[in-house]
Amino acid sequence: MSARILSASVLIPVVLLAIYLGGWFFTLALAVLVVLGQIEFFEIVRRKGYRPTENLCLGLSLTLLAIQQLYPQLANGAFVLAGGLVCVSLLFRRQPPATISDMATSLLGLFYTGYLPSFLVQLRALDGLGYLLLLTFACIWASDIGAFFFGKAFGRTPLTPISPKKTVEGAIFGTTASILVGLAGAALLGWSLWPLTGVVFGLLVGVSGLLGDLTESLMKRDVGLKDAGNLIPGHGGILDRADSYIFTAPVAFYFIDFIVLGRLPLP
Amino acid sequence: MSARILSASVLIPVVLLAIYLGGWFFTLALAVLVVLGQIEFFEIVRRKGYRPTENLCLGLSLTLLAIQQLYPQLANGAFVLAGGLVCVSLLFRRQPPATISDMATSLLGLFYTGYLPSFLVQLRALDGLGYLLLLTFACIWASDIGAFFFGKAFGRTPLTPISPKKTVEGAIFGTTASILVGLAGAALLGWSLWPLTGVVFGLLVGVSGLLGDLTESLMKRDVGLKDAGNLIPGHGGILDRADSYIFTAPVAFYFIDFIVLGRLPLP
Repeated sequence: MSARILSASVLIPVVLLAIYLGGWFFTLALAVLVVLGQIEFFEIVRRKGYRPTENLCLGLSLTLLAIQQLYPQLANGAFVLAGGLVCVSLLFRRQPPATISDMATSLLGLFYTGYLPSFLVQLRALDGLGYLLLLTFACIWASDIGAFFFGKAFGRTPLTPISPKKTVEGAIFGTTASILVGLAGAALLGWSLWPLTGVVFGLLVGVSGLLGDLTESLMKRDVGLKDAGNLIPGHGGILDRADSYIFTAPVAFYFIDFIVLGRLPLP
Repeated sequence: MSARILSASVLIPVVLLAIYLGGWFFTLALAVLVVLGQIEFFEIVRRKGYRPTENLCLGLSLTLLAIQQLYPQLANGAFVLAGGLVCVSLLFRRQPPATISDMATSLLGLFYTGYLPSFLVQLRALDGLGYLLLLTFACIWASDIGAFFFGKAFGRTPLTPISPKKTVEGAIFGTTASILVGLAGAALLGWSLWPLTGVVFGLLVGVSGLLGDLTESLMKRDVGLKDAGNLIPGHGGILDRADSYIFTAPVAFYFIDFIVLGRLPLP
């Protein structure tokens, strides 16, 4: 626990500074996490005997991050082409030739550890001071902390065999904490229809964070690992810390951009 | 060969009619192909022992096709959320729990046999009469026919162990045929800088068609199959016929929309 707190006290100020500075500062800080997380993902996958096209995925993930920063309106089209490139790159592998799993896990790596988190760049760029990104992170933190302490004290019912330590009580309380933070944030930021949009935002972030967490647990469980890595003392690997942010990134971005800011591009 | 010609003489008028009518007619005709192709893909994948989330992928692929028709500007964001849904849906599978491969092949199925071909809907919608889609198809047909006959007559050098019948000579001549058709089409349609844009378009379509073809061969080879199915007499399965169109769809759409029509959304 003390290693955990020590690591957090170094990392949290760095994260807050990157959010505050925004722009390329934030994108570069995120790029470090994306690269480390993707390397961990491919380590997990290689333990199953698959041979994904790791270097190409890393290069394409960094390219997608740069595109999210420079030309966000091109990011989705760029992913389509990047995903196609990943598939066809495996055609040129000999001895032994690539398999369906090599191709599928390469695409999953690009999507899950590269493309999904890249939406944090667009989320940061939505406002000048990073309040929207900070609110998203605050919801995730509230959900994690709420689920951890409440689950420890009152958790009885196991949530899923994938992640034996999680309880239904913890998940419910974590999501409630995320909703309360979402509600407070929506009121402070003066979102239109704030009681409704705040609750929905907190719910979406809480649930997508939990699902991201469980997705990584499923992957680790499949290869019989406890932690994805041991990079941060007391916290396991990067993916063990960053998994909650992965699905949340596009969900929070599209909800705020389309619904809260009213920029749903309908004709 | 005669079953092949008979099937073609029924299918080609249907394809031409769907292209001519456009709109929902085209989207529905494509939806039939997408569903059949995706079922074949998942049959291939199940032969490797993986258990992808087939019904969800089919439902999401049809939804993505409908979104390409109704709100094309939302299609890319919808794919991000659909891909996320596919991943998290596997969290709820018990006995035995889902594996990384189940998740990765589900995502590959959604991407390769659902999302990539859905760009044909946007390609058809670019002009009123379907000339741009017809030109794309004409390039693929020229490439296929050119590679087949020239490869048969002069092919000596094997192209790749993935697909033993393909030769370097066939691939070069097929791509040349695609470039010639692209050049003619660009001249007829009066594309700006037509000699350049026509050659690049023909090259992109020829190469992406060949790569789509080889990608499907890689998958079949991985499970020891000759044809992906036996739906069309003399033509193998749907994927055996449709594989050339899969990567070509987004490549042709983005090239025409961004470069030829000059709608690259840069600030």
